[in-house]
Amino acid sequence: MKQQVADRMQGISAFYVMELLQRAKQLEREGRDIIHMEIGEPDFQTPQAVIDAGRALLKTGEVKYTAAAGMPELRSSIADYYQQQYGVTVDPRRVFVTPGATGAFLLAFGISLNPGEQVMMSDPCYPCNDNFVRLFNGHTHFVNVDASTQYQLSADLIAKNWYLASKGVLIASPSNPTGTLINREDFHKAITQVHQLGGCFYSDEIYHGLIYDQPAVSALVFSDEAFVINSFSKFFGMTGWRVGWLVVPDAFVEAAEKLAQNIFISTPTHSQYAALASFTPENMAELERRRIEFKARRDFLYENLLRLGFKIACKPEGAFYIYADCSAFTDNSFEFARALLEQEGVAVTPGRDFGLYLADQHIRFAYTASIDRMSAALTRLERFLCR
Amino acid sequence: MKQQVADRMQGISAFYVMELLQRAKQLEREGRDIIHMEIGEPDFQTPQAVIDAGRALLKTGEVKYTAAAGMPELRSSIADYYQQQYGVTVDPRRVFVTPGATGAFLLAFGISLNPGEQVMMSDPCYPCNDNFVRLFNGHTHFVNVDASTQYQLSADLIAKNWYLASKGVLIASPSNPTGTLINREDFHKAITQVHQLGGCFYSDEIYHGLIYDQPAVSALVFSDEAFVINSFSKFFGMTGWRVGWLVVPDAFVEAAEKLAQNIFISTPTHSQYAALASFTPENMAELERRRIEFKARRDFLYENLLRLGFKIACKPEGAFYIYADCSAFTDNSFEFARALLEQEGVAVTPGRDFGLYLADQHIRFAYTASIDRMSAALTRLERFLCR
Repeated sequence: MKQQVADRMQGISAFYVMELLQRAKQLEREGRDIIHMEIGEPDFQTPQAVIDAGRALLKTGEVKYTAAAGMPELRSSIADYYQQQYGVTVDPRRVFVTPGATGAFLLAFGISLNPGEQVMMSDPCYPCNDNFVRLFNGHTHFVNVDASTQYQLSADLIAKNWYLASKGVLIASPSNPTGTLINREDFHKAITQVHQLGGCFYSDEIYHGLIYDQPAVSALVFSDEAFVINSFSKFFGMTGWRVGWLVVPDAFVEAAEKLAQNIFISTPTHSQYAALASFTPENMAELERRRIEFKARRDFLYENLLRLGFKIACKPEGAFYIYADCSAFTDNSFEFARALLEQEGVAVTPGRDFGLYLADQHIRFAYTASIDRMSAALTRLERFLCR
Repeated sequence: MKQQVADRMQGISAFYVMELLQRAKQLEREGRDIIHMEIGEPDFQTPQAVIDAGRALLKTGEVKYTAAAGMPELRSSIADYYQQQYGVTVDPRRVFVTPGATGAFLLAFGISLNPGEQVMMSDPCYPCNDNFVRLFNGHTHFVNVDASTQYQLSADLIAKNWYLASKGVLIASPSNPTGTLINREDFHKAITQVHQLGGCFYSDEIYHGLIYDQPAVSALVFSDEAFVINSFSKFFGMTGWRVGWLVVPDAFVEAAEKLAQNIFISTPTHSQYAALASFTPENMAELERRRIEFKARRDFLYENLLRLGFKIACKPEGAFYIYADCSAFTDNSFEFARALLEQEGVAVTPGRDFGLYLADQHIRFAYTASIDRMSAALTRLERFLCR
């Protein structure tokens, strides 16, 4: 009997947090008040200017396919954005609009990764990244990271862990789950190291913009040969719209064009029009107000988690996550998260969703809820810890 | 230097029609009037009720992620649709909402196809299908088909062409590019044959609804073990919205759930809400009016192409394509298409986009333009042929 699930699916696991999320929804249906700090989706709505642009396009009724690589105006606007934010010139030909960052990862690995090749990533890291590699029958080589490198891969770690089968290296800065950045100098060294080894450098920049201390730097500042994944979901507040982008090296433009035609046809048209409205000064000012609010949330949650006895080895500088060491309370963070949900109605994500390294001693808190809601969550958490 | 394009991309080609399309757009910029009969996108706008539903959702501002498998209401509505249209009961758990039919193909092959395995398809067929298989490092085994089987694979052809490496069989009915249906009895036999061989049956039903003579039948009528790909793009008039679906066998539900979480996160939220408005009696009545218009277009184009000397071995019964034998005029349909565009401003798709078998002797005409526009196109075509 050949009608069986593909082998790759044995290695692709569901997110553990999904089990908790389903339980949280069940509890909500039963009337319980659940405070959500588990999902990477802010409570903010999409900015009004963006919504208005989407509605205006729908009003025309002309929701037709766009070019596979995206609307030319949007590709140009994204290229301009690199000039404004990072002082880098990017040819719009290298910018591919995709259905979210997930589409960007599909495209990046689809055009570059052969079966059996390895991609190096940090442990902990975002669980989908490994699964994209598995989708194309590649392998992920996880390298344990800790506070000594801000939970990031370094040139040194890359060199030590490079194998014959290594194809490239993925760095996410800010990182999910740790919220940490790789600093400018280390980033430059890491990219240079990868290129010296002849590998592909994949830069996950989907939390750029949501950065609270040092400025972020794009991989494109150091190299035209990097693959850069970004999205309108997080900083731009467009999660459900599903629009992101991929910047590819020149040598991959033709392949990206061909593959995008086949696997996307195009990115949702109304979402592209809406995204195009993101770059106005008014909307950027609104996003800056939100960034300041996120920063206040980060500081509030960070200080309170420390006060309660969690250890946080690196103060997170970006995204909207704190990866907290809960070993003072438990050696099983999944059970901790489950009990916290059942007893106090606070939903968080257990470390095992992000890898194996010290996963049972960590919990990811998302500060996607308001300070009022987080304040209530912290009261409940404190009660939970005192039991 | 390892930073090179993945091997699979050597076998994934751009659509030849893209070259013509770019040229057509250039000519339009120069002021030429181009009649488009090359692209699989009707001139109709999205139905008003669907647009209104999309706008209403946007007005709330709540464009958040949905469940990875799709909104429960939409999955249920799609399941109900199978009951209404085909009298088949489908558990909504088996229905996965995807970013267009392309997303459905990604999901179907991602969860079922191992590298090196073969999928059998007809030649001619839609070019993306082969490329999805290549994406996962599988191989497509093309089987030449002709009018003797309505350009469809048959149980007999399947049995004769089944190999050790065969994983499954894809049948598209109505077919793109031929517009032909597999009849009910042959469909049943083909599915039974594939299951007897232990293979996966992939049923591309994206043109269901756009059927003008005999009623269409879903693979689900004959088997709960078929993978069924469908979409809101064509019949429902929602091309640019990017929303489709996949029905999977029970044994693949868990794998589909896991993979959808990873490669989609979710399908665009506003598109899902809008799609949900498709199934009202009022909207279905609007779609029926459009179907009748398409039927009139089919008859008009079919008769006129025959009059001009094209041969059409099987009268197309569905979709919005006519695959016409142009061997009376040329033995190079690509050059024919190029000259027709340059000299007369009529854009059509050359056969080579759909395979190798007699490809140079065929042209695909899409009747996605109004009868008035097609009438003008036929006048130009007649002039072109008389030169």
